[in-house]
Amino acid sequence: MFSPLIEELIRALRCLPSVGPKSAQRMAMYLLEKDRDAAELLARSLAQAVEKVGRCQQCRTLTEEAVCTLCNNSRREQTSLCVVETPADVLAIEQAGNYHGRYFVLHGHLSPIDGIGPADLGMDLLERRLASEPLQELIVATNPTVEGEATAQYIAERAKAQGVTVSRIAHGVPIGGELEYIDGGTLAHAFNSRTAFFPPAE
Amino acid sequence: MFSPLIEELIRALRCLPSVGPKSAQRMAMYLLEKDRDAAELLARSLAQAVEKVGRCQQCRTLTEEAVCTLCNNSRREQTSLCVVETPADVLAIEQAGNYHGRYFVLHGHLSPIDGIGPADLGMDLLERRLASEPLQELIVATNPTVEGEATAQYIAERAKAQGVTVSRIAHGVPIGGELEYIDGGTLAHAFNSRTAFFPPAE
Repeated sequence: MFSPLIEELIRALRCLPSVGPKSAQRMAMYLLEKDRDAAELLARSLAQAVEKVGRCQQCRTLTEEAVCTLCNNSRREQTSLCVVETPADVLAIEQAGNYHGRYFVLHGHLSPIDGIGPADLGMDLLERRLASEPLQELIVATNPTVEGEATAQYIAERAKAQGVTVSRIAHGVPIGGELEYIDGGTLAHAFNSRTAFFPPAE
Repeated sequence: MFSPLIEELIRALRCLPSVGPKSAQRMAMYLLEKDRDAAELLARSLAQAVEKVGRCQQCRTLTEEAVCTLCNNSRREQTSLCVVETPADVLAIEQAGNYHGRYFVLHGHLSPIDGIGPADLGMDLLERRLASEPLQELIVATNPTVEGEATAQYIAERAKAQGVTVSRIAHGVPIGGELEYIDGGTLAHAFNSRTAFFPPAE
């Protein structure tokens, strides 16, 4: 219906997550009709980012520098390291604002069925850091999925072997959530992991 | 939080219609983490489309060719012309599938407050076509908004002056719509424009 270049642009826009044929068409029309400057800027940004953005040598998050700003920040606690699956997880934790240590990004989780083993998740780099840095705690914040839990288990064992204290972030009913709408698996976990209301004095 | 190039990419993605900060971040992460080929393709498509896509010399729709496929198609009826506001409207009408004439795209509507007058909508080109082509009917399919109606009125008068029959597409309750959920303006219009159930025999 549209000319070849426009059809190609619509197809290319459909690669974006949660953009279907109608949205892609709307985006293409918008850019070509109303905002060609934005389209040019987006084309340049995409090309630049694809060319230059790589992984931080220390924590493997996405960055165009050799070492990312977080790893370079000397005010971050050097004694704790938080392992997450994706760079977006780092952002989510930073926005929560109560963790001040550093991160390690796996870029996924162990998944033998997809051929993803420890090497793909940078486990060798993580083990080198566990061995060489003055870490007191390794916090495992992988997702609470089957694969995320298996990955957490694997990392916990490697860290224990190196003599580092390992912890897992708590899972349970979200703050502000209503029990009525929480799934059974989460509720069961919340019951099993209940904590004493009046912990015994030490 | 992210490195400068990634922040810039997220900002650029936010120019897309209905993409907010969270979606833009998700898109950037997806492209950089999972599909750099798609990102490169999108960058190229955008640059190409911005550089090459212009307007059809006859109907003003978006195309990289001098004259678009629809205008070039000799099997389309030469006797009727449909005036629409945007290239997306052409697509919508083509998908409905019962109009076989040609189109004229205004790229907007008359809007004195935004400084958009007849010249911006290609009225001179439309008038030349009205004068020189063997048109029997001009169908005005601008949107049923205040500006769309004013534009329709303007076009109808110009076409009448040139001796061309002008019609306006029908407005009323959409097929499959439920009266209960239709706004008052549309219902009032549907009552005013009611047609005889048994039209008198001619």
